[in-house]
Amino acid sequence: MILGIDPGVANTGWAVVDDSGGEPRLVDCGVIETSKREPVGVRLGQIDDGLREIVHKYKISKMAVELLYFARNARSAMGVAEAIGVVRLSGCREGLEVVGYTPLQVKMALVGYGRAEKRQVEIMVRQSLGLEEEISPSHASDAAAVALTAMYSKKW
Amino acid sequence: MILGIDPGVANTGWAVVDDSGGEPRLVDCGVIETSKREPVGVRLGQIDDGLREIVHKYKISKMAVELLYFARNARSAMGVAEAIGVVRLSGCREGLEVVGYTPLQVKMALVGYGRAEKRQVEIMVRQSLGLEEEISPSHASDAAAVALTAMYSKKW
Repeated sequence: MILGIDPGVANTGWAVVDDSGGEPRLVDCGVIETSKREPVGVRLGQIDDGLREIVHKYKISKMAVELLYFARNARSAMGVAEAIGVVRLSGCREGLEVVGYTPLQVKMALVGYGRAEKRQVEIMVRQSLGLEEEISPSHASDAAAVALTAMYSKKW
Repeated sequence: MILGIDPGVANTGWAVVDDSGGEPRLVDCGVIETSKREPVGVRLGQIDDGLREIVHKYKISKMAVELLYFARNARSAMGVAEAIGVVRLSGCREGLEVVGYTPLQVKMALVGYGRAEKRQVEIMVRQSLGLEEEISPSHASDAAAVALTAMYSKKW
């Protein structure tokens, strides 16, 4: 069972993908939202708590985190990186193998093209998981994408 | 008692400054070093453990963290930002007030000049703390600088 994570201070998308059968299966997904009124440290604590709850609920063996490749907006990137640090820490504290993939690696794994559009990735996520409807919100879909990347990378 | 932190995945400098008297006093300082062979999540865990130990040892009421203002080297900045996230989380989990200062704010507070050199900051840290010898290693001196910034900012 792979837990995919799309980290962010305000919204951290997550998706649990069952990789035990032939085809990947989406078990559950969602978003950990944090309260803007709280200090960043408290919000990071809410992410940590939320992730641990998910790890305890499902038999997760591996955590796949979407990393930042290049910071276009340095300020917002710093926040995402702080969340990535906390996600890594949570995963390791729970005894999980934690792997990180850049957006480029996710696009290569799912679409086979590093400059693929977000929409193409979303379609491939649905096809891979045999879903007709879009995964909502998009942070959860992004989390599923990185979980699938971890699953496909294993086969390579 | 203020705990100043200069965060980094490999080396996190820390300094405990007593702000209860008229003049600030350096109580203790050091560096939390993490093992390069371990995964990042484990190293972030070592930082979290180390900080909690320091907070328990001294009666810390406030944590002052040096933030990143601008990322010259995006890759190394990402690592520092991940460590900042974990430091914030540790502080909040220990019930501390956590404040962050950019390098610019530290320089303004200690030297009164935002483009001051590292060396000038180091000299002002020693003068403020009434120390003749340099604080070693430099990460610990940087941590003392941010603790002093928090102390001086309170008076403004």
